[in-house]
Amino acid sequence: MQPTVEDVAREAGVSRQTVSNVLNAPERVRPETRERVEAAIAKLGYRPNRLAQGLRASTSRMIGYRIEPVHPHALGSIHDRLLHALADAGRAEDHHLLLYTADDPRDEAANAVALHRAGAIDGVVLYGLHAGDPRPPALLEHRVPFAAFGRTGADDGHPWVDVDNAAGTAAATRHLVEAGHRRIAFAGYPKGTDVGDRRWEGWRSTLDAADLLPGPDLRGEDSVATGARLAARLLDAPDPPTAVVAATDTLAAGVLSLARERGARLAVVGFDDTRTAAVLGLSSVRQPIEAVGHAMIDALLNGPPAVRLLSPELIVRGSSYPL
Amino acid sequence: MQPTVEDVAREAGVSRQTVSNVLNAPERVRPETRERVEAAIAKLGYRPNRLAQGLRASTSRMIGYRIEPVHPHALGSIHDRLLHALADAGRAEDHHLLLYTADDPRDEAANAVALHRAGAIDGVVLYGLHAGDPRPPALLEHRVPFAAFGRTGADDGHPWVDVDNAAGTAAATRHLVEAGHRRIAFAGYPKGTDVGDRRWEGWRSTLDAADLLPGPDLRGEDSVATGARLAARLLDAPDPPTAVVAATDTLAAGVLSLARERGARLAVVGFDDTRTAAVLGLSSVRQPIEAVGHAMIDALLNGPPAVRLLSPELIVRGSSYPL
Repeated sequence: MQPTVEDVAREAGVSRQTVSNVLNAPERVRPETRERVEAAIAKLGYRPNRLAQGLRASTSRMIGYRIEPVHPHALGSIHDRLLHALADAGRAEDHHLLLYTADDPRDEAANAVALHRAGAIDGVVLYGLHAGDPRPPALLEHRVPFAAFGRTGADDGHPWVDVDNAAGTAAATRHLVEAGHRRIAFAGYPKGTDVGDRRWEGWRSTLDAADLLPGPDLRGEDSVATGARLAARLLDAPDPPTAVVAATDTLAAGVLSLARERGARLAVVGFDDTRTAAVLGLSSVRQPIEAVGHAMIDALLNGPPAVRLLSPELIVRGSSYPL
Repeated sequence: MQPTVEDVAREAGVSRQTVSNVLNAPERVRPETRERVEAAIAKLGYRPNRLAQGLRASTSRMIGYRIEPVHPHALGSIHDRLLHALADAGRAEDHHLLLYTADDPRDEAANAVALHRAGAIDGVVLYGLHAGDPRPPALLEHRVPFAAFGRTGADDGHPWVDVDNAAGTAAATRHLVEAGHRRIAFAGYPKGTDVGDRRWEGWRSTLDAADLLPGPDLRGEDSVATGARLAARLLDAPDPPTAVVAATDTLAAGVLSLARERGARLAVVGFDDTRTAAVLGLSSVRQPIEAVGHAMIDALLNGPPAVRLLSPELIVRGSSYPL
């Protein structure tokens, strides 16, 4: 007998609706409640019904993954880490990855549909989802199984796994507040992406909860040069902040370089825990990409996972010194 | 009529043996002669005979590539850059990459043979070749087509492409000599790998040619911490060097960090032009990985390329300042 939502609700001592919220919109549920529901899900071995068959009847034993050109300006290599994680997880399930390239999301969906029709792949992994993304509807229409890293922002009716980006910048901001900083700025990329907006939210909501006025909120393209430029603007202000939460290690590296060049004190925390962060002594929020990779393969093969919002981890180094 | 070795020799005004040397042991040929022969090869469209059919009659249109776990200590991501380059080059030829994992070279060969036997791949790309490597003989025995990035050190009878590692460190050393440095150390990893030994050779032969005594030659595992430790030993010596040629950006980043921490002047050049190098202002030798990727796919599909030893490029930044 498969456990039901009711069984999970009873075990966790919450309503059916709360279980449903944990499954579909986990960030709207209080962390303590979420943990209780997730523990009940794990204990009972509950799985949501939709698409629960997964790919167990697969034939090619191949999973498609779009590989992008290397971004010349960004330090991050989250997608390369994800690729390694997917390959490892696929191996444990006797599946291989097939790499394909694409010009844009529409082309990516068309290539995935063609590969699936040709029997070359059983399903695909998507990442970098955004509002109005053409990939999920195209793949659903052509019945190509897929799992997504990230969400479109709508109540997505397909398997997805995401990292709690807001929790990451919230942990970074809390860490700086506990280190005595009271004027904490944000350096991010332009508004309008799900990931970027959630990273901003984590900074803002933590300052609000601590009754601190938000420091300057500056934006620009994701490059080291932009990080340095934003740091110069912050330090040249009449009442400069003493710390910065950056949306990426790339921006944080620019902030750090400029501050060190000027001999200015400006604590900074980045996001993604790139290899450069370790070299620079940059504190950074690390995404659990290995767990994401395993959850994605599991979602494709066995149906949507019950726990889909994974928590990042703050790695503290010298750059986030106390005030 | 296909051009022959004799046609190339006549066009370049050299002997047959010289053309053969350019094809099989290019580093033994003087650069000017090599360039003349390579120009003749390109003009005539010459291709070596062996395996010249390539994979044109392929069926799966899939090429296997072994993906390794992420190395926690190394900054370099040459293999990730190669993966992107191979995917791009494969796309142009209507081939996809199939990723597989393996525990060691023997397991890798066994997996490649099994995938080839199952019809899942037409051939594989190898990298990281070393003396006594079990992969080439195993693949030759089971008639699995392959192209290798790097060489075993023997006169390899299969398609390979390599980067001229000695030319890379030679360019780095010459650059430091021209900047006035006379006491130039080497920081590398332990002897016994083809890549590492050639990088050492480029440093040593350039100093010999310039009639300069070689500075200290220090070794250790390829990590930032080791780079810092080696730099401390260099700076604490009675007559410290003024510059260091490092075998990797990872070691160079350690050297640079320690020198900056101590406020010591110690010029340094790394190898691989990682993203971290750009952030640190580290001069570095850049491998032409995109060209390597295209040459490998071409070798697999069309037979061994005529020009197989590609030149790296020195990228000069602030870390290699004049004496």
